[in-house]
Amino acid sequence: MTAAVLTIGTELLRGELVDSNAAWLGEELTSLGLDVRRHLTVGDDVDDIAGALHSLLGQVRVVVATGGLGPTTDDRTSEAVARALGADLVRDDPSWEAIKRRYEARGRDLLPCHAKQAEFPRGARVLENPEGTAPGFAIERDGVQAFFLPGVPREMKAIFARSVVPRIAELGHRDRCRLHVRVFGLPESEVAERLRPLEESNPDVAFGFRATFPEIEVKVEARAETASEAEERAKAVADRVRELLGDAAYGDRDDTFAGVVGQDLRSRGFTLAVAESCTGGLIGTMLTSVPGSSDYLLLDAVTYANSAKTQVLGVSPEILRAHGAVSAETACAMAEGARRAAGADLAISTTGIAGPGGGSDSKPVGTVWLGLASAEGTLAVRHQFHGDRAQVRTQAAYVALEMVRRHLRGRDPAEGASARTISDIVRHMDLRSRRQRP
Amino acid sequence: MTAAVLTIGTELLRGELVDSNAAWLGEELTSLGLDVRRHLTVGDDVDDIAGALHSLLGQVRVVVATGGLGPTTDDRTSEAVARALGADLVRDDPSWEAIKRRYEARGRDLLPCHAKQAEFPRGARVLENPEGTAPGFAIERDGVQAFFLPGVPREMKAIFARSVVPRIAELGHRDRCRLHVRVFGLPESEVAERLRPLEESNPDVAFGFRATFPEIEVKVEARAETASEAEERAKAVADRVRELLGDAAYGDRDDTFAGVVGQDLRSRGFTLAVAESCTGGLIGTMLTSVPGSSDYLLLDAVTYANSAKTQVLGVSPEILRAHGAVSAETACAMAEGARRAAGADLAISTTGIAGPGGGSDSKPVGTVWLGLASAEGTLAVRHQFHGDRAQVRTQAAYVALEMVRRHLRGRDPAEGASARTISDIVRHMDLRSRRQRP
Repeated sequence: MTAAVLTIGTELLRGELVDSNAAWLGEELTSLGLDVRRHLTVGDDVDDIAGALHSLLGQVRVVVATGGLGPTTDDRTSEAVARALGADLVRDDPSWEAIKRRYEARGRDLLPCHAKQAEFPRGARVLENPEGTAPGFAIERDGVQAFFLPGVPREMKAIFARSVVPRIAELGHRDRCRLHVRVFGLPESEVAERLRPLEESNPDVAFGFRATFPEIEVKVEARAETASEAEERAKAVADRVRELLGDAAYGDRDDTFAGVVGQDLRSRGFTLAVAESCTGGLIGTMLTSVPGSSDYLLLDAVTYANSAKTQVLGVSPEILRAHGAVSAETACAMAEGARRAAGADLAISTTGIAGPGGGSDSKPVGTVWLGLASAEGTLAVRHQFHGDRAQVRTQAAYVALEMVRRHLRGRDPAEGASARTISDIVRHMDLRSRRQRP
Repeated sequence: MTAAVLTIGTELLRGELVDSNAAWLGEELTSLGLDVRRHLTVGDDVDDIAGALHSLLGQVRVVVATGGLGPTTDDRTSEAVARALGADLVRDDPSWEAIKRRYEARGRDLLPCHAKQAEFPRGARVLENPEGTAPGFAIERDGVQAFFLPGVPREMKAIFARSVVPRIAELGHRDRCRLHVRVFGLPESEVAERLRPLEESNPDVAFGFRATFPEIEVKVEARAETASEAEERAKAVADRVRELLGDAAYGDRDDTFAGVVGQDLRSRGFTLAVAESCTGGLIGTMLTSVPGSSDYLLLDAVTYANSAKTQVLGVSPEILRAHGAVSAETACAMAEGARRAAGADLAISTTGIAGPGGGSDSKPVGTVWLGLASAEGTLAVRHQFHGDRAQVRTQAAYVALEMVRRHLRGRDPAEGASARTISDIVRHMDLRSRRQRP
């Protein structure tokens, strides 16, 4: 069953407000099993609203509209709907009494303009507003259901739950299931190539790809006669997606990459320390966005200055002098120092050139050394990342977390999907002895 | 001159992604003097895209579309535009060469699906993409200009600035000027109240407010016969906005709060160290998003574990035992320890309960102690923030940075706009002596 969302408000067209109502309604209608085909925004203009409604009534089976039901002169939705239907506006007495009571209870003066909120196109069904003054309303025209809700998100959501959901449930039944696979470490084009045969051999399943740098989300949507059949189909195909993408497929819809790494740490009883230079706190921010991360993250030392690297992490001034801050030796010493300072099982480090300045021929912008220290030793990997400052930082943070994930799973931390940006590897460097040399 | 925005992507219809591109384009087109009349979203379906384009070409003079230009099978915008125009798709050789070079430079394999990104409807003008692989394109039909840009915001914005703005400027002329004032530390309602008289006495200037937690952006837009007159009016009113909002008005459109604090540090030749607990690296991430921040940020120690607070920052175990990690004493000791470890002029610290768990009657979720250590001494301020985990962390990070800003400007760091969430203050605590007690 097809649906459309109509949002009304000149402030939306001008970008003064991001249209979060449209996204919310799109998600809710989709989860109710509707196929959302259009989202249209028009300004507070009677002709534009009436024209938009007229066209949507001819295109879909369900229309949900928000906005333009308030008391001010630019709230003109009821008038526009009446015009589109060729109906007149009539006052709904119970609504008018409720509005009067509401204003009285709050000690606010009732103004002539408030009466407008109790006027609806003839034949409309009034939808009570449990959260505010302006009621919504519903109309039916040639088998198309249209719902008109206020633009205030809290009121819109309350009326949607109370009056729209039950009506839509009467109209149809769920017949689709959508699953998400989150991916890090493969470019979008390679994800698409690897999944192409699967996509071609399952024409009844819709595939979608969304890139949210540096991740890709693969969506698999199956339709079937019953909800359980749809779920079974979607699960089978999503399992195959995970097989084809290997370790790069790290989680489901609600997972985050740092959260998955955190789960791995927690389930193995491991603690982590982080020493960041070029990533500037991003790894810590990602890890600590997850509630409960204090169980495994002991320390994140963002050591921008060489003096802090020495004083906080014990990186020897000789290493910094001889090899520079962006080097395998410094990355290893930072990781070892963070591990020691925090008494952690594992530590990772980042040191590199995020740009836009600071690059050279031998260490261009995007050069990042990542270190990993564990009970088994220390290694450092040099990556050459592309993109702007934010992208270099984000990639470095993700790849550093991937090293933790691979180490915990018994994989080589310097391989895996993100190995394609590696330009150098130094394994099991023993810095403690180096540092002790004169 | 009328305009419409067309955003393409099934994920938008389903609400998996909030359509921030539409809001951004609405704002930009409005500021270029266009009257944005429609915003339409359709899914990745050739018929739907072609139908939407066909209808918009008949309604407005300028159409800006985003999305569906990537390499995957659900990217079908070029094909749909060709169908709407009755044209065929042709490969643009320079674009194809550029795409090949881009992949080669990154050492990535070129796959058959990439060729699609170099195919455009016959007669289209290719719009170079300085930020990514997929170029945009422009068509003209019966005097209507239509621009097709990628959905990735960074790439969309770059092509818009480079190719769309100049073309729109040719079509009309600028007769308006919009200025932005960024605000932190006042609620939206108070910003609106303070500016109401100014708004009423300048009916020819449009005011807009946009809340992007925890900031408010005030927009002032003047229209006049010439661009220079409009600029003069807008500047005069924006100056008055800054006066009325005082210190809370921290910058212009392209400023960031952390960037402004960084400028203050740099101009005074001060260095900063940060000790974060509940903010988990957020302050460091904000500061280091600004290129050149390594000049003043020496260290950010995210000390989640008490052992790290002791070992890295020298917070004495007695303080932690006697007062707890979330206390004035710990906040002060963290700030002093970070200042000492990094040899910085100033240091700030955060320790609190971001939630959702961990609260108690005496220290509910949202309790955060912020510390500031300088040559003049140390102070700690207790705030009671409201909101979810992310909001508590964000507010704490901003207010900690505001303390730095006020200190550098000779103001009391424990006052200012954000003082309304303060529930306790401990000034110039001398922890060094306390710590040395047995």
